[in-house]
Amino acid sequence: MDMHALTRSLKEKNDSKIVMLVADGLGGMPVEPGGPTELEAADTPNLDRLAKKGVLGSMIPIKPGITPGSGPGHLGLFGYDPLKYVIGRGVLEATGIGFDVGPKDVAIRCNFCTLDAQGNITDRRAGRIPTEQSAPLAVKLREVKIPGVEVFVEPVKEHRFVVVFRGEGLGGNVADTDPQKTGVPPLDPAADDYDSQRTADVAKKFVAQAREILAQEPKANGLTMRGFAVKPALPTYQEAYGVKAAAIAVYPMYKGLARLVGMEIVGQPNNLEEEIDVLGRAWNDYDFFFVHFKYTDSRGEDGNYRAKVEMVAEFDKIVPRVEALRPDVLIVTGDHSTPAALASHSWHPVPTLLAADTCRPDACERFGETEALRGGLGHFEALYLMPLALAHAGRLGKFGA
Amino acid sequence: MDMHALTRSLKEKNDSKIVMLVADGLGGMPVEPGGPTELEAADTPNLDRLAKKGVLGSMIPIKPGITPGSGPGHLGLFGYDPLKYVIGRGVLEATGIGFDVGPKDVAIRCNFCTLDAQGNITDRRAGRIPTEQSAPLAVKLREVKIPGVEVFVEPVKEHRFVVVFRGEGLGGNVADTDPQKTGVPPLDPAADDYDSQRTADVAKKFVAQAREILAQEPKANGLTMRGFAVKPALPTYQEAYGVKAAAIAVYPMYKGLARLVGMEIVGQPNNLEEEIDVLGRAWNDYDFFFVHFKYTDSRGEDGNYRAKVEMVAEFDKIVPRVEALRPDVLIVTGDHSTPAALASHSWHPVPTLLAADTCRPDACERFGETEALRGGLGHFEALYLMPLALAHAGRLGKFGA
Repeated sequence: MDMHALTRSLKEKNDSKIVMLVADGLGGMPVEPGGPTELEAADTPNLDRLAKKGVLGSMIPIKPGITPGSGPGHLGLFGYDPLKYVIGRGVLEATGIGFDVGPKDVAIRCNFCTLDAQGNITDRRAGRIPTEQSAPLAVKLREVKIPGVEVFVEPVKEHRFVVVFRGEGLGGNVADTDPQKTGVPPLDPAADDYDSQRTADVAKKFVAQAREILAQEPKANGLTMRGFAVKPALPTYQEAYGVKAAAIAVYPMYKGLARLVGMEIVGQPNNLEEEIDVLGRAWNDYDFFFVHFKYTDSRGEDGNYRAKVEMVAEFDKIVPRVEALRPDVLIVTGDHSTPAALASHSWHPVPTLLAADTCRPDACERFGETEALRGGLGHFEALYLMPLALAHAGRLGKFGA
Repeated sequence: MDMHALTRSLKEKNDSKIVMLVADGLGGMPVEPGGPTELEAADTPNLDRLAKKGVLGSMIPIKPGITPGSGPGHLGLFGYDPLKYVIGRGVLEATGIGFDVGPKDVAIRCNFCTLDAQGNITDRRAGRIPTEQSAPLAVKLREVKIPGVEVFVEPVKEHRFVVVFRGEGLGGNVADTDPQKTGVPPLDPAADDYDSQRTADVAKKFVAQAREILAQEPKANGLTMRGFAVKPALPTYQEAYGVKAAAIAVYPMYKGLARLVGMEIVGQPNNLEEEIDVLGRAWNDYDFFFVHFKYTDSRGEDGNYRAKVEMVAEFDKIVPRVEALRPDVLIVTGDHSTPAALASHSWHPVPTLLAADTCRPDACERFGETEALRGGLGHFEALYLMPLALAHAGRLGKFGA
């Protein structure tokens, strides 16, 4: 029995409100021996007060040693086993630009490339053609018509764009057409299973028409297709947990990930303050709120320790506004660590805080990585954060008599 | 490979004795900010001394956030994955009244109800008929005779009673006959799978004869059947761990749960002191002893913090008598938490203590929830307590060369 079978069978209704504040890439590292992490260095009076009242834990995003991308990181946070539910590259790319991938869709990451007169690839990325030049080409490819299939083409950045085919019987197991070298032609789309044969046929037609449309383009006269993927069959928050969930985020990627699990995207906030405005306005209409803050991750990725410290402090400042709404369960966490010292996502556990009247407080006095090691939630996998949230909200009944 | 496959392949014989003292619902919560839990507030000089000598841990009964009933709670403690081995409602009810459910049995929870002249239900619980009136009716139903099947009828309380059919080929997947509303007749017993067809047929015959027997009863002239269940195929303690196990408990439910895993029920103690008397007398005849203390849970369920504190102190007092028997491994734990603040079972981890000459002591100075967070056993699932007990008793060999 997996955790969703359990939560589905035990879920109970009440009027409680759960807020999950996610500071992307929250976990960090010291930059000098014995020094503090970004979170520990930051001025966080509000989070420290919450830490004293609530319970801390050291959350493992996937499994020890595994560094998650944004997709698996968020799936884990949302309580979906990221090793069971894999979001294919095409779907993640489409999701990242705000495309709402549906159940009849197969999404594909495409690259513009350049071909010589014989049709062999001369540059696999079309010289990293600037977005201003590549975007109109992507839009032009919308002229492609394939009977029985809706075709969507969306520009991404530089040589990258997304194609989505919508129709019946389109499986997602088609091999990449990028041969990974120059001097040879792109591969023909080839199905890896019976259910994906139609997708491969559709892709072949797409490529043929696209090649005609692009034939005279000097910068990019060909394309390759990679990461064919269909939307994974994720149970929704409503099904799995019995909650009506809202997602509040600035960036399309996180809205898209939330949409995949059945959250409704509310508002169009441009920054954290506006996100909390949206939270307040949506308060009466939902049971669960996912609020995403991007910049802790961004500054970590930049390798800028001081700037990440400042972002944490900025994040801390909005906490009282959230508390003022009186959530029954307030969680503060991240989808993974992004230590400035590594300038990248990492596998390190994420300090996590849960405040609720029903929690058993621990001895933690402030919010930070070291303090979280002696927290009452112990070391736990992200997968269990949602069951813990529901339990503390009184939304899970007893298992067995 | 599950833990039982491991312990089965590694188990070794010796003369060691293991005692597991279970204070039901041991874990608690503070009732004021910064205050102690029930266990932390109680005067427990003996448990504190053991904690200093031994090793502590924070035990998760099922999975994070999941609140167990007594059945799954004890299965976990006994080392049986509660998500794999599910004890059906009928078996649990029969077990709870001390009925020894066997491998050819299907057990059913029944309710007396009242029916009008058309056979429609007028009261699903027969007005919660008092036990003095319902018990004789249940006994009267023992007159039912069904060829090829032994029929047992046992009173429980008020409108509730238990029926057990014993015979060949009686599956447990039969739907409830309670329509969950009045003004309609009880449903016919309907099999959910092929193997349960005979059970449904037997149940129909039982209902028909019971209706005749009850026809003239003014208070309860009908019945409904729920929670059809067969005994789960649990390996015994002897098979799984190679130990001869004794269970010492006052209440039938806990004796029944222990019997399901092959423990022998010893003595008929009426209180904790008598349970320890029984322990002493049985000392030479068994390798493993499960001793159950009920009242920590009862006072927690009552929501009475002070009374639970007193029960913990009472529990502490018997510890020297157990130590005097010189067990090789002495464990003190609970099957779940029952914080008085919640007046119910909860998901919070259970402080757990293991004392043995072979343990690696930690820095813990006393027995309590907060102290257990820095214990040497860390946060661990109940499932692993028995392997830890066996290991500390020198009863598990090396895995692999």
